[in-house]
Amino acid sequence: MSAVKLTSNQYGKAENHVVRVYRDTPRHELRDLNVTSQLHGDFEAAHTEGDNGHVVATDTQKNTVFAKAKEEGVDSPERFLLTLAGHFTASFDWVTGGRWSAEEYGWSRIDGHDHSFFRSEPEVRTAVLVRDGADDQLVAGFYGLTVLKTTESGFVGYPKDKYTTLGETEDRILATDISTRWRYNTTDVDFDAVYRQVRGIILSTFTDHYSKALQHTLYQMGQNVIDAVDEIEEIRFSCPNKHHFVSDLSPFGLENPNEVFYAADRPYGLIEATIAREEATERPDVWAVVNGFC
Amino acid sequence: MSAVKLTSNQYGKAENHVVRVYRDTPRHELRDLNVTSQLHGDFEAAHTEGDNGHVVATDTQKNTVFAKAKEEGVDSPERFLLTLAGHFTASFDWVTGGRWSAEEYGWSRIDGHDHSFFRSEPEVRTAVLVRDGADDQLVAGFYGLTVLKTTESGFVGYPKDKYTTLGETEDRILATDISTRWRYNTTDVDFDAVYRQVRGIILSTFTDHYSKALQHTLYQMGQNVIDAVDEIEEIRFSCPNKHHFVSDLSPFGLENPNEVFYAADRPYGLIEATIAREEATERPDVWAVVNGFC
Amino acid sequence: MSAVKLTSNQYGKAENHVVRVYRDTPRHELRDLNVTSQLHGDFEAAHTEGDNGHVVATDTQKNTVFAKAKEEGVDSPERFLLTLAGHFTASFDWVTGGRWSAEEYGWSRIDGHDHSFFRSEPEVRTAVLVRDGADDQLVAGFYGLTVLKTTESGFVGYPKDKYTTLGETEDRILATDISTRWRYNTTDVDFDAVYRQVRGIILSTFTDHYSKALQHTLYQMGQNVIDAVDEIEEIRFSCPNKHHFVSDLSPFGLENPNEVFYAADRPYGLIEATIAREEATERPDVWAVVNGFC
Amino acid sequence: MSAVKLTSNQYGKAENHVVRVYRDTPRHELRDLNVTSQLHGDFEAAHTEGDNGHVVATDTQKNTVFAKAKEEGVDSPERFLLTLAGHFTASFDWVTGGRWSAEEYGWSRIDGHDHSFFRSEPEVRTAVLVRDGADDQLVAGFYGLTVLKTTESGFVGYPKDKYTTLGETEDRILATDISTRWRYNTTDVDFDAVYRQVRGIILSTFTDHYSKALQHTLYQMGQNVIDAVDEIEEIRFSCPNKHHFVSDLSPFGLENPNEVFYAADRPYGLIEATIAREEATERPDVWAVVNGFC
Repeated sequence: MSAVKLTSNQYGKAENHVVRVYRDTPRHELRDLNVTSQLHGDFEAAHTEGDNGHVVATDTQKNTVFAKAKEEGVDSPERFLLTLAGHFTASFDWVTGGRWSAEEYGWSRIDGHDHSFFRSEPEVRTAVLVRDGADDQLVAGFYGLTVLKTTESGFVGYPKDKYTTLGETEDRILATDISTRWRYNTTDVDFDAVYRQVRGIILSTFTDHYSKALQHTLYQMGQNVIDAVDEIEEIRFSCPNKHHFVSDLSPFGLENPNEVFYAADRPYGLIEATIAREEATERPDVWAVVNGFC
Repeated sequence: MSAVKLTSNQYGKAENHVVRVYRDTPRHELRDLNVTSQLHGDFEAAHTEGDNGHVVATDTQKNTVFAKAKEEGVDSPERFLLTLAGHFTASFDWVTGGRWSAEEYGWSRIDGHDHSFFRSEPEVRTAVLVRDGADDQLVAGFYGLTVLKTTESGFVGYPKDKYTTLGETEDRILATDISTRWRYNTTDVDFDAVYRQVRGIILSTFTDHYSKALQHTLYQMGQNVIDAVDEIEEIRFSCPNKHHFVSDLSPFGLENPNEVFYAADRPYGLIEATIAREEATERPDVWAVVNGFC
Repeated sequence: MSAVKLTSNQYGKAENHVVRVYRDTPRHELRDLNVTSQLHGDFEAAHTEGDNGHVVATDTQKNTVFAKAKEEGVDSPERFLLTLAGHFTASFDWVTGGRWSAEEYGWSRIDGHDHSFFRSEPEVRTAVLVRDGADDQLVAGFYGLTVLKTTESGFVGYPKDKYTTLGETEDRILATDISTRWRYNTTDVDFDAVYRQVRGIILSTFTDHYSKALQHTLYQMGQNVIDAVDEIEEIRFSCPNKHHFVSDLSPFGLENPNEVFYAADRPYGLIEATIAREEATERPDVWAVVNGFC
Repeated sequence: MSAVKLTSNQYGKAENHVVRVYRDTPRHELRDLNVTSQLHGDFEAAHTEGDNGHVVATDTQKNTVFAKAKEEGVDSPERFLLTLAGHFTASFDWVTGGRWSAEEYGWSRIDGHDHSFFRSEPEVRTAVLVRDGADDQLVAGFYGLTVLKTTESGFVGYPKDKYTTLGETEDRILATDISTRWRYNTTDVDFDAVYRQVRGIILSTFTDHYSKALQHTLYQMGQNVIDAVDEIEEIRFSCPNKHHFVSDLSPFGLENPNEVFYAADRPYGLIEATIAREEATERPDVWAVVNGFC
């Protein structure tokens, strides 16, 4: 047999969907989270020998998520992940860190009602905590916020080669689904307030400039977020360019001055960028864990 | 060979995703529709002989959708489907009817901006037109509106048999994804206004009563819609009971007075009902076409 | 208030995912079904009054599915649905019928192993039983079987109008995802054997002729199935024409004699047809229940 | 404004779905790939200034994918990605590398037919090439291969704390969807042959031992793959533990000796591990690019 080694590994219980209701007064509140807990530490023997002496059961991790939702409550997703990490690393000395993540779904009251809600937010809020010994890295974000502008976007000045057929345009639809994650430089943050602030900055940046390319727009979004929020060290975007092609109606004797579009599915442009505070240290180790294994 | 016959059949182009922009003033408007066109009529020879003399190409149907979006514009999805039906039945004398349907995605302006939008509506609006000769049946609706109430819902008084283990409760979470379709008794409707009105009635009905079961709630929604809108002949609901189970925290010495819930995926209850105006004629033939083949 | 009436309605528990293992010998067997149970009968008071005296809890229906999988075993999906229907209509005199359905996922042994399997079948097998008093209608089928032929398909001879731009071709890729359902005229069937037979006929029909259109091919599939299986009264198909467009490489000085294709997503053709035994009675009432509410 | 910097970034065209047919003889062949091209290099000005002088249009990247499928053909996905990388880095001197990836869908002949196929493979094959200057890293893999064993699996000996309720078992169902990626130490590989070999080893390892935990099984899979294939430097797994719970039928007076299971959706265990050749250098930089941005 070839000599092998176990390198990176993590395990846990994924997608514990917990809804926490606060009903101390007639005006109820709720938080709706889908929580994943994964542990890092000394799990070598489980892999090589089938010795589970260190394997905190994924079922136990699940129970802990629900119990902590009662014991500690759910304030923000970020705060809840810190609670979980604190529990597991304090309880098992071979657990040296881990990856805890959550998605949150946003609800609003129906007509201001005390206990009736509808799921109102188009985007899913995300949070990941990567703990490695004494180092805590918190990455927040969201995905699924679709935006579109009907003008004030173009694409010109790109290189042409033998495979280029695209024509230049200074007036097109620009549409994308915003997926973004930002890394905090502290855990002392009003996470809900900053979330709303960042979401607002990203949306308003989308409106207020002529976009020379999606790269250009994402960079400005990143610049504006970092300007506004001291606690954010870097921000990433992964955004499809959702092509809206001007429908060719000329065979039918019709002009189409950017009025009728075919919204295509695939292929799509895919533009990804990270904008960081000038003095920020890059942390590829953290992003590797945020983004997962496969 | 056994003697066989061709019975029901329809064909066309599905999911023509058309975005129509109105940009006559600096304050742009847009409608975002996913349109399917399917024809009914004399298509026997195409099936039995491979004779395509009557087969209006699905590609032609696609072209027509985009051309009509320019020529006639997109007012409401219902009005646009009537336009398409009018075109095809007038143009080809062997086309005696068809099924035209659309989904519409709802956008809102970002901060009131003139030409920047985000996809804001959680639900997808639907419309189907079934034309059979001189008979036009319009069915409107939506799906994907998720609602939840944290109390004022129970389930008691049901029969118990040897397979019953469920306990009665007078305080539970009630949550569902509302899917509904309503059939109009006329095509002379302000479709956008009625859509908003029905959506509002369904939401407000959800808030304002103690729900004895999802059946009980759906019936009241239907009653209230028919009370309010003379143009609606019947309304259907197909709604999952999205179970939120009270997490059993007693092994950990914790009480859980309806504060921490596990939101389950499957199985789920599935409650379906049609509420019709007392004097309505049932039209199973129309619903069979609305709901499709497989 | 407007006078209203409750017309069609059904309710139950959807997607009870049950895996039944037979392990009486070292060579294990398994059946993997996703089962939905919905009851028809006198449920008026539950809707209008919130009186649940007739409402066999959906939780009870779930328990019954799992208990019957032990008590009666799972032979074929069709046979299992008949068992469920027999139980509910015999146990509750106000339950006059219902809709019971199942999806089955197909597994194969890994290298012939006794108890290790992989999910091998690309398609999902389906079955629906619609019982109305003494009338049992069984509809079997499958979806998700994707087929493609690289030649021996064309489309010519169709009508041209002002919106037609498609060119004729006698050599193209034909690709579709086969969704089909067939209605039996008896419940005395070797359901597993007929399933394999029908699947085989559909696949072999796809190979053995020049296809003048997807309509032409579906009709032949139906003809061949009805020829071969006396117990099948009618068969339906709902099949997308999954367009594979010849990539235009001429701007790059390259010929493309049907070698490089762009596989498009949307829009797609949608071809739907029912082929019935000559003497068959049409049963739109059954199909309406098979296809569901919304 | 805060000083910021652009750090990691990549862009391109995602999901170019290309089907390549070889029809030089009556016995046709096909390869069905979904290809993504993303470039790395000097794209600073596009972000900061909106200067697109270096931005090889994503449309051009798309055209190149289809043209190269004709010019160079599609042998294996890995070889095709090397072709694309070679083109882009040779053509544009500011393109210093990139990420090219593909999914491949597996087809088989229908009854051995010359030009009719069905999509037969349950899993999706994957390949990613990360080029950075002179360094080429190729990562191959697959996802979506679902396996299940009905016995010879257990979970015992794990630590118990106040949140532990799980009971030990030495006989349970073990089921997972295998997602795996392996990194080659060379580009001189018979990629199709190795793919089939690795898939076979993973399946056979699943059958041939008593699994003490999914960790234990994944490790053995990795050991066996590295033993057998010299060209593989490390292999990763990300596998859900798809829980099949023994249905509790005791309330109905029924025993259930591991015969009837409830297949649950969420939450699920999630077990992830990397097994590397003893002397392998870890390459977190490569995995970070493989796994993407968000």
